[in-house]
Amino acid sequence: MVIQMVFENEKIKEILNYYRKIWALNHASSLMGWDLEVCMPKEGVKERSFADGELSMLTHDFITNDKFVEMVEKADALEDLNEYERGVIRVLKRDIKHAKAIPREIIGELSRVTGEATMAWREAREKNNYEKFRPYLDKIIDLERKIADYLGYEEHPYDALADLYEEGYTVRDYDKFFGEIEKPLKTLLDKIIEKWPKEHPLEEKSYNKDMLKKVNFEILKLFGYPLETRARMDVSAHPFTIGIGIGDVRITTRYEGFDFKRSLLAVVHEFGHALYELQVDSRFSMTPLVHGVSSGIHESQSRFWENIIGRSREFVNAIYPRLHEHLDIVKDYSPEDIYIYFNTVKPSLIRVEADEVTYNMHILLRYNLEKLMITGEISTKDLPEFWNEKMEEYLGIRPKDYKDGVLQDIHWSGGQIGYFPTYSLGTVLATQIGYYVKREIPDFYGKIENGEFKAIREYLREKVHRYGKMYPPKELLKRIFGEEVNPKYFLEYLEKKYLL
Amino acid sequence: MVIQMVFENEKIKEILNYYRKIWALNHASSLMGWDLEVCMPKEGVKERSFADGELSMLTHDFITNDKFVEMVEKADALEDLNEYERGVIRVLKRDIKHAKAIPREIIGELSRVTGEATMAWREAREKNNYEKFRPYLDKIIDLERKIADYLGYEEHPYDALADLYEEGYTVRDYDKFFGEIEKPLKTLLDKIIEKWPKEHPLEEKSYNKDMLKKVNFEILKLFGYPLETRARMDVSAHPFTIGIGIGDVRITTRYEGFDFKRSLLAVVHEFGHALYELQVDSRFSMTPLVHGVSSGIHESQSRFWENIIGRSREFVNAIYPRLHEHLDIVKDYSPEDIYIYFNTVKPSLIRVEADEVTYNMHILLRYNLEKLMITGEISTKDLPEFWNEKMEEYLGIRPKDYKDGVLQDIHWSGGQIGYFPTYSLGTVLATQIGYYVKREIPDFYGKIENGEFKAIREYLREKVHRYGKMYPPKELLKRIFGEEVNPKYFLEYLEKKYLL
Repeated sequence: MVIQMVFENEKIKEILNYYRKIWALNHASSLMGWDLEVCMPKEGVKERSFADGELSMLTHDFITNDKFVEMVEKADALEDLNEYERGVIRVLKRDIKHAKAIPREIIGELSRVTGEATMAWREAREKNNYEKFRPYLDKIIDLERKIADYLGYEEHPYDALADLYEEGYTVRDYDKFFGEIEKPLKTLLDKIIEKWPKEHPLEEKSYNKDMLKKVNFEILKLFGYPLETRARMDVSAHPFTIGIGIGDVRITTRYEGFDFKRSLLAVVHEFGHALYELQVDSRFSMTPLVHGVSSGIHESQSRFWENIIGRSREFVNAIYPRLHEHLDIVKDYSPEDIYIYFNTVKPSLIRVEADEVTYNMHILLRYNLEKLMITGEISTKDLPEFWNEKMEEYLGIRPKDYKDGVLQDIHWSGGQIGYFPTYSLGTVLATQIGYYVKREIPDFYGKIENGEFKAIREYLREKVHRYGKMYPPKELLKRIFGEEVNPKYFLEYLEKKYLL
Repeated sequence: MVIQMVFENEKIKEILNYYRKIWALNHASSLMGWDLEVCMPKEGVKERSFADGELSMLTHDFITNDKFVEMVEKADALEDLNEYERGVIRVLKRDIKHAKAIPREIIGELSRVTGEATMAWREAREKNNYEKFRPYLDKIIDLERKIADYLGYEEHPYDALADLYEEGYTVRDYDKFFGEIEKPLKTLLDKIIEKWPKEHPLEEKSYNKDMLKKVNFEILKLFGYPLETRARMDVSAHPFTIGIGIGDVRITTRYEGFDFKRSLLAVVHEFGHALYELQVDSRFSMTPLVHGVSSGIHESQSRFWENIIGRSREFVNAIYPRLHEHLDIVKDYSPEDIYIYFNTVKPSLIRVEADEVTYNMHILLRYNLEKLMITGEISTKDLPEFWNEKMEEYLGIRPKDYKDGVLQDIHWSGGQIGYFPTYSLGTVLATQIGYYVKREIPDFYGKIENGEFKAIREYLREKVHRYGKMYPPKELLKRIFGEEVNPKYFLEYLEKKYLL
């Protein structure tokens, strides 16, 4: 096989050569992060944090190195770059801009404060004591505001933060996006709640963990996940995916012991993330283009597998024999029962347990609060009350305590303000991809029912994955669909699935 | 608890501050090495090798950095350093000397050649074809000779290589050492073979891997290995120990499916290494002093646990109930049978399967061949014949093929010429430690029989472990024993155990 060179320009090759050490540091950091969640003995944490901090500082130094910056700037001025090379320069300019804009001491302070804040958040949540967390949240909001200022923005400080997770997305985009969703979704939800099952006995049933593990691995096999050759699945407190290399992608799930769909659909979800990382053009290995382009596009892949495939009747039919063989608790239920179990709809307080109908309401709430916090329009003192009121407005329920309300998510203690909307973006894009996939892959659901996933994997590779970070999200979407994100697909999907 | 500062000098503190990034790179590399053997999917190997190469080059650059070298040289001239600080400077001077002496291109070539040689060695061993490996061995010997010249030596080029693994040890030391062992050991061996059991039926018996795993973990618990808090045990093709941090030490073993003592005693052996890493003074965390000082001293710890404790009657008595409970194949045998099984003595062709009596003969053979290869006194063409003749001379047996002879070890393909003698050093030192331990810990064997290992752990911490790399091996030995390594303890131990 002849591998066609995608990076031909000598200046670009020099840049990629220099970039190797930044890539290697990222590779090491990724592994260290995975190990921390999956393997590391508890008392390794102090040394691991220090090591990770040192590696981040080295990466920062290499990215902001004057000679490197000059190389990138000079290459940016070249006119004969191909699209791959353009992609490299776009990504590096962004990295350089972010690294140079934010002073090292702010990064250091953020790292220190978020470390303490995460510990305080855990304790506050456990003790249902919001005041224990509030001073840290104040500090984080203050730091995030400063970071927004350092990064710069045209219209809204939130724009600067949102762009970190979804290149090119602003409050203007998200306001329009959520504006198109909010009311129709509320109307749909009211109708769905009236006629659709809210709960299922399996939600309470405990299962045999080893047996569910078998099912999960069999599903991955069915999907074509390259276990042992290029991939792994392990156990961690919170499911996640990490691309350590093109030849080494890892997912995790958890086994809580009851409500088995949580573990199983987490596997399906993380597989979607993993497939993206696995199917990036292998010629991008060790370059800045090697990962998925943004949080939202990544989430569109995981949600596509979780919701469009994993929550479909045909998928349930495909895995039913395996469920029946390995899980005693499934024996009393038909495939249709399991389909309902995978798709109960009920307004609930906890985002991570939400169904695909109510999920975006949880995100809308967070998005609105984040905007108000970053402009200072609401203080952290009033935050819980705002949260509860919005919850009542969007889903008609009201948290009785902080841990089921304002204290439920880890994101703010980690300084990830601006991240939440990408979850909705991904959830909506998944249905948009679903629409096009069904049009372009003959007998899409028949294939799922037969356990044939190759055509679907290839479609996603061709349309999305292979590009890695080459194109920014908006441009990538136009290339895939000829249009940007469009909530109408999401609303139509819900209507068709739950109301027809 | 007040932690006493051991590094007080401002210049030393500056050096340690700079050293943090070197430490962090080593931390990352260690984890990457562990992961490669234990977790990594196969196709991750190419990216992992590149990443590791990049990190090594960064480490090399930071160690040879002019400013850093100057800082170390200036600190070396200070007169008011304490012993801890002196230790830091000694270790760093060594690292700097090694990094500066050998040109980068030689390191690069060695890394490339050993990579190819290891692959060629695997194939050659499989096909029993020495000629496939010989050209690589020639290249490696040539490179090692160059490295010896770059490093410099007074009497023998082998001195320079030996020092890399055992600081301060030379051909003069090892000739004297092996000279004192060779003849008396041969005499002892002849007598032992006459009266001692050569084999045991359990050597052929297959076992249930999950059950042996249970036994192995129970033994670690008995020893006080801090599983989950500071340590792990996993499975890999070849057992090894790695200290990723003071709070994160990991061992591995393997389950071949028959002859269970191989797996069990490997766990005991690796525990000895791990305990050394775990009991280094915790104030040395993230400094150059944090690991065990040398290959030989490290091996003395693993061999002490494996041979002095693990192959004792009292240890067998202590674990017998667990063996009996978990392993069906043990049911027909008494504790005394198991003791014999753990201690059969028989001249054999393969080093890693050798008993504690014949083991040093295998090392003596390799040591003698290495010296002759490095001076060019024998060519690789004549090597197999030399090997076979020496084997016959030392152990009275002759390999029928290359894979049971000259092709059995991985060390030469990895460029580790000078390493082998540290195995004998460790094996002998283990008995020396055994002598002193028995004198200083009341009822040593009674404690083992009762599963009480705290006093033994504490003795080793106090005498050896806590110092980390603070003192070079010879000085450390004088501090522990008031004398250097002395083979008489080894010979007396064998005589007492096998002939009285």
